[in-house]
Amino acid sequence: MNSRGSLNLGLLGLGTVGCGVINLLRRNGDEIARRCGRSLNLVCASARDINKRRAADLDGISLHADPMAVVNDERVEIVLELIGGIEPARQLALATLRQGKRLVTANKALLAECGREIFSAADKHATRVAYEAAVAGGIPVIKMLREGLAANRIRSIAGIINGTSNYILSEMAASQKSFQEALGAAQACGYAEADPSLDIGGFDAAHKLALMASVAFGMPLDYEQIHIEGVDAIDLNDLSYAAEFKHVIKHVGIARHTACGVELRVHPVLLPQRSLLAHVGGAMNAVFVDADAAGPSLYYGAGAGSEPTASAVLADVIDIARMPESELGDAMPSLSFHTLSDLPIVPMREISGSHYLRLKVKDRLGVLAQLTGLLAEQGVSIEAALQKEPLPGADTAMIVLLTHQVKEALMNKAIAMIERLDEVIDPVVRIRVETLD
Amino acid sequence: MNSRGSLNLGLLGLGTVGCGVINLLRRNGDEIARRCGRSLNLVCASARDINKRRAADLDGISLHADPMAVVNDERVEIVLELIGGIEPARQLALATLRQGKRLVTANKALLAECGREIFSAADKHATRVAYEAAVAGGIPVIKMLREGLAANRIRSIAGIINGTSNYILSEMAASQKSFQEALGAAQACGYAEADPSLDIGGFDAAHKLALMASVAFGMPLDYEQIHIEGVDAIDLNDLSYAAEFKHVIKHVGIARHTACGVELRVHPVLLPQRSLLAHVGGAMNAVFVDADAAGPSLYYGAGAGSEPTASAVLADVIDIARMPESELGDAMPSLSFHTLSDLPIVPMREISGSHYLRLKVKDRLGVLAQLTGLLAEQGVSIEAALQKEPLPGADTAMIVLLTHQVKEALMNKAIAMIERLDEVIDPVVRIRVETLD
Repeated sequence: MNSRGSLNLGLLGLGTVGCGVINLLRRNGDEIARRCGRSLNLVCASARDINKRRAADLDGISLHADPMAVVNDERVEIVLELIGGIEPARQLALATLRQGKRLVTANKALLAECGREIFSAADKHATRVAYEAAVAGGIPVIKMLREGLAANRIRSIAGIINGTSNYILSEMAASQKSFQEALGAAQACGYAEADPSLDIGGFDAAHKLALMASVAFGMPLDYEQIHIEGVDAIDLNDLSYAAEFKHVIKHVGIARHTACGVELRVHPVLLPQRSLLAHVGGAMNAVFVDADAAGPSLYYGAGAGSEPTASAVLADVIDIARMPESELGDAMPSLSFHTLSDLPIVPMREISGSHYLRLKVKDRLGVLAQLTGLLAEQGVSIEAALQKEPLPGADTAMIVLLTHQVKEALMNKAIAMIERLDEVIDPVVRIRVETLD
Repeated sequence: MNSRGSLNLGLLGLGTVGCGVINLLRRNGDEIARRCGRSLNLVCASARDINKRRAADLDGISLHADPMAVVNDERVEIVLELIGGIEPARQLALATLRQGKRLVTANKALLAECGREIFSAADKHATRVAYEAAVAGGIPVIKMLREGLAANRIRSIAGIINGTSNYILSEMAASQKSFQEALGAAQACGYAEADPSLDIGGFDAAHKLALMASVAFGMPLDYEQIHIEGVDAIDLNDLSYAAEFKHVIKHVGIARHTACGVELRVHPVLLPQRSLLAHVGGAMNAVFVDADAAGPSLYYGAGAGSEPTASAVLADVIDIARMPESELGDAMPSLSFHTLSDLPIVPMREISGSHYLRLKVKDRLGVLAQLTGLLAEQGVSIEAALQKEPLPGADTAMIVLLTHQVKEALMNKAIAMIERLDEVIDPVVRIRVETLD
């Protein structure tokens, strides 16, 4: 044990993750000190209601209703921002950095949407922002991209990075629940918020993808340019048809470095049943990375929850505690690279891929031939087709197609034409087909 | 880019990994400099035959036949030891550390067997040994245990950490090859050495397990106390019978922290087909970690090969390059903890578990009843049994049993008694059954 003193922490937010951090510090403080050569000391914390009963022992921690009191506490060397949301988190983050203090945050929305401002404030004041907990909870995926794979050019990242969406799709597939039933189950288990739109709309996954892409490729954050689709359009039928093609449906974020620029997209995909990502069930997360030297690698674990997220928050704190006192700001830029390059983002319409199409059609002779003919005219060729006969008494049939590779723009045009056909009843359901690992 | 100068490296060994390092530095040097804020400069290298044609461009690198010339080169700040084996690697490592230089090594045998001496030399001379490349090649598993999960108490680690053994078992299962045929295929693909005994005997996996356990639990290296079995006793029949029980056979290293001490063991296991580790095929590696806060996590990737290993070597170098110049030795002890504790190692005979037993018996009425009766007397109860009728003309049958949990000592005694029975022909094949992830 060296002779450096303890490192003083201030905590913003006593919710699930904040209480997880306190519990973990109390339980594992000795083990952490054995690893750091010094102890971590949580001196103060803030919460809107400081009298509310909490899932942690607050003994010995000064409590403030005003979070700025924590930021301004002269003892505090690192501020842990675990409030979430944009404001007041943004103001608190900037105030922390202006004082030259370190910021550790789990706030993916804040960083994805205001990261350029926050990281430049950190640079200006020679301090640093750490955010392992913002991506994939307990899986140290930022550290992996920033350090473990630092000798590589990263080719692509593909991750199941929203536990709620993965739980819903896993529940639908395993128990034949409808989307709404599975969402209800996710809410009952505490995996989904009362307002689940950030999760099921794909926005939370996009926040995480923006951070991973910047750290992997050394580019500025570009959340606004991510193509985002959620899981809310997935139907139980799609899971069954996917299974007939030996595929599963997962919701993923993909960042890929190509000769034309960077693909940044979040949407459901059909993955081969044999792929590793297909086996990531429940609320678990996994990130697959393809790197030029290390080759393919995959990181799997709990993407959310009190202690998994607290584990990531404290990993960032321990990194700082282990560093020599001097030149802290110099060692690691917030986005891992000392210089960023503005890489072009490939527009979604330019990306090529295979597609799963589900169409509800009037049960007339020759519909399938008409459809495939129309697709062929647009240069879309069919790899496999499935026609589901109507139920007795119904006069509609379901047609499912898997296409060969085609540019998104052509597929969009073909889908628009198909939807204008008299025989086609509902909007076409389209899910991209990928082989990621 | 900050103003620090380049970091000078000296390389010992121009084999597969050494050439991988050179190629990777040449290809990704710019990207690495963008991450480090300074460039890496390979100034000299050694090889027994400096005139031999190599798989890398050696232009601009001073070559020495004497490796000590690299260690002693005043320009060299970090020595990369990529020779392998115990001597002369040990002498070169100690000489490097005595000069206060950093050592980066991929040499698991050296560290597992002489690590106490080497790490204490590093401490004495206020320098450090980094060895990401010694465990699981391109997967940053040492970094994960040392940093990413640093706020956790690690409960257990279970890894497929020998690519050769995994390739052999995967080939046997996929193509119904015999052990010898699969070993031949591994050698033809370059996965197995001409003398494969370190790999198939389980010793290489044990070297890696010793390092992971020390970094995870903060204990001194204890290679000598690891229980080691290889894959060489696995028969094609065992893979088929395992499949009938919905299991696969994998070769794993397990380190588990229990109330009685630490289990350290390397041996084949039956794993449920649905487990993640069961899907790790070919020569790939994967390490599953159970930690008290982060929960279960898994890290998958290439465990060997020129560039995956070079990726790990350079990740260690980049960590050093990114650190502030001062107090280098202080920041991270070689085994991750500032103080180690001597944890007791649980003797294998004390460990409880389920077992797969395969017995070749004379085809007589009542043999199965006799066996299960004898096992019951020793407190071993049977979960499932399979009796394979003899081929026409043969007078032997095969009996396969899965037992419930039982202490290893009792199982050993029961097996010894079974082998004394007149009806039992060959030694009993015993494989432990585990649910690891």
